[in-house]
Amino acid sequence: MFRESPRNPTAAGTRLAAEQVAAILPPTPLLPVQIGGVSLWGKAESLQPIGAFKIRGAWFRLNSLSSEERRRGVVAVSSGNHAQGVAWAARRLGIDAAIVMPVDAPQVKLDATRALGAEIVLYDRPGGVDRDAVANALCDQRGAVFVHAYADPWIIEGQGSAGVEITHQLGRQPSRLVVCCGGGGLAAGLALACPDSAIVPIEPQGWDDMARSLASGRIEPVGANPPPTACDALQTPQTAPVNFAVLNHRAEPGVAVSEAEIRTAQRFAFRELGLVVEPGGAAALAAALAGKTCLDEHTVVMITGSNVDPQQFAATISTADQTAFDNPHGAPHPRGLMGREGERR
Amino acid sequence: MFRESPRNPTAAGTRLAAEQVAAILPPTPLLPVQIGGVSLWGKAESLQPIGAFKIRGAWFRLNSLSSEERRRGVVAVSSGNHAQGVAWAARRLGIDAAIVMPVDAPQVKLDATRALGAEIVLYDRPGGVDRDAVANALCDQRGAVFVHAYADPWIIEGQGSAGVEITHQLGRQPSRLVVCCGGGGLAAGLALACPDSAIVPIEPQGWDDMARSLASGRIEPVGANPPPTACDALQTPQTAPVNFAVLNHRAEPGVAVSEAEIRTAQRFAFRELGLVVEPGGAAALAAALAGKTCLDEHTVVMITGSNVDPQQFAATISTADQTAFDNPHGAPHPRGLMGREGERR
Repeated sequence: MFRESPRNPTAAGTRLAAEQVAAILPPTPLLPVQIGGVSLWGKAESLQPIGAFKIRGAWFRLNSLSSEERRRGVVAVSSGNHAQGVAWAARRLGIDAAIVMPVDAPQVKLDATRALGAEIVLYDRPGGVDRDAVANALCDQRGAVFVHAYADPWIIEGQGSAGVEITHQLGRQPSRLVVCCGGGGLAAGLALACPDSAIVPIEPQGWDDMARSLASGRIEPVGANPPPTACDALQTPQTAPVNFAVLNHRAEPGVAVSEAEIRTAQRFAFRELGLVVEPGGAAALAAALAGKTCLDEHTVVMITGSNVDPQQFAATISTADQTAFDNPHGAPHPRGLMGREGERR
Repeated sequence: MFRESPRNPTAAGTRLAAEQVAAILPPTPLLPVQIGGVSLWGKAESLQPIGAFKIRGAWFRLNSLSSEERRRGVVAVSSGNHAQGVAWAARRLGIDAAIVMPVDAPQVKLDATRALGAEIVLYDRPGGVDRDAVANALCDQRGAVFVHAYADPWIIEGQGSAGVEITHQLGRQPSRLVVCCGGGGLAAGLALACPDSAIVPIEPQGWDDMARSLASGRIEPVGANPPPTACDALQTPQTAPVNFAVLNHRAEPGVAVSEAEIRTAQRFAFRELGLVVEPGGAAALAAALAGKTCLDEHTVVMITGSNVDPQQFAATISTADQTAFDNPHGAPHPRGLMGREGERR
């Protein structure tokens, strides 16, 4: 399923990535967030130029290619945000990019990737087609470089540049980084960049393969017939050896959040932070709001993406938070804590 | 209508305000924005802790009060954002605050002001009651200090701290500051903080008293029966002498934007920037998108507030941009320019 990694990602790699990212992208803000009487920080990667942190890894990966590799072009697989990151970096560097995307990816992400000048190759995710096989075939045909969304040391280091940036902004490493987790590229990068920080991976319920892998000590795939989730960005079948090697015995136990908890987090970000956050980008905030992870004043919650369908977002913000009764799988709802303190609005 | 200003606001005052603001609030980000092939900057004051730049002026004003004045409390008048700014600063400094708000203020702003611990005194804006008279009577009763939303040198200097911050972030003064304009507190503050920058005040159509005042060289009130506008934050009856003294012969001609242009700007901010922006906070962006002001790479567009009713915001983002045909009062719609370039998504 995964090609062997050419090398292991390193802390030094995250620092090099941070230099290269800082040369073209302004730092994203660390916003003060009040949850249940604790003042902590939200890292608003949703404000990146493509609306997601994925621009970091894509830029570092493509910028690290040789001129020979650049000439041959790149191929990537993505439900959307990695696609846009690779397309953005490719256009900026004058590299041809083909992106393998699922036919059921949000229209907003398909359109945006196309608008960035990338070639889109659709595959049938609901029909169970193996996307990596599609991409590998394309690479073999064209001699192009495969840029994996997470199973790649440059991608991991590139995403980790966010941790270097946070450390600079806070003047110290966070006590705890609460991280939305799909394949584990961001979580592994942050673990390398911030060796003193606890890393807490957050996944949607039924897609918590990382949590189960960390618990068992070996890579576990998502179960058969996982439930539907609004988190298109976090629907990865399993983590990869290069990511798991970093996170095993290093990350805290993983946490799963419900769809209702994710919508509550999207509403909180809308109302209290002025941020548009897509479902997958709100998973870490959802865990924090649901009381599913410890929080202190040096905690940073990663807010990772803003690419959401307008109709879906409108429906989410038009609906009231559900009660604990409606949300039997979640922790007691922190509804009474939110907004009431009024530290923000 | 306005009490005489105790002094004139100064550039040095904006620098002092910037120091005091920086001591408690992280800088808001300057986000890259692509409009019609030009790469410029959006200053996301909508990400301030109360969701608006008003926290700057309120903090500087209240922090500058003597201990005797603090003991007597403050009174403010506001449709919402200044109210929250004063309530936030008052709570932080342990000062009693009473806020005079219109009965038709957005519920979200009323709730948030109350949540910050301020006393709310409602007045009948639709019925034509003079809000300043209500506030003055309260001050006389209680001996409290009246904190005007814009006709106050500390408030002007406090809002101007955003200009000091922008200059630091850009490494130079902007060529042009495109500014949402109600009473002119922010516009005047920026004019003082950035003497080399062109200042372009933007108002809703029918509420363009500043534009008309700048054209005639004397303060002109809003006309009788102004049209309804979604920009509750920009519904000021007229600017004040202390603001106009700064802006007359200094600001560029004012620009008016239509309600449709404002909604288009809210959708652009949602889709391209990941920001929640309230109607009044999107006026400057609306002018930039509608081609109503010159833009270059050193232009900064002020994005001033995020406090919007969820149902109203949901309706706005669920609707497609109107065509030039539907929007006869606006300039040709830049619809073809937006998103297509894909510099962002």
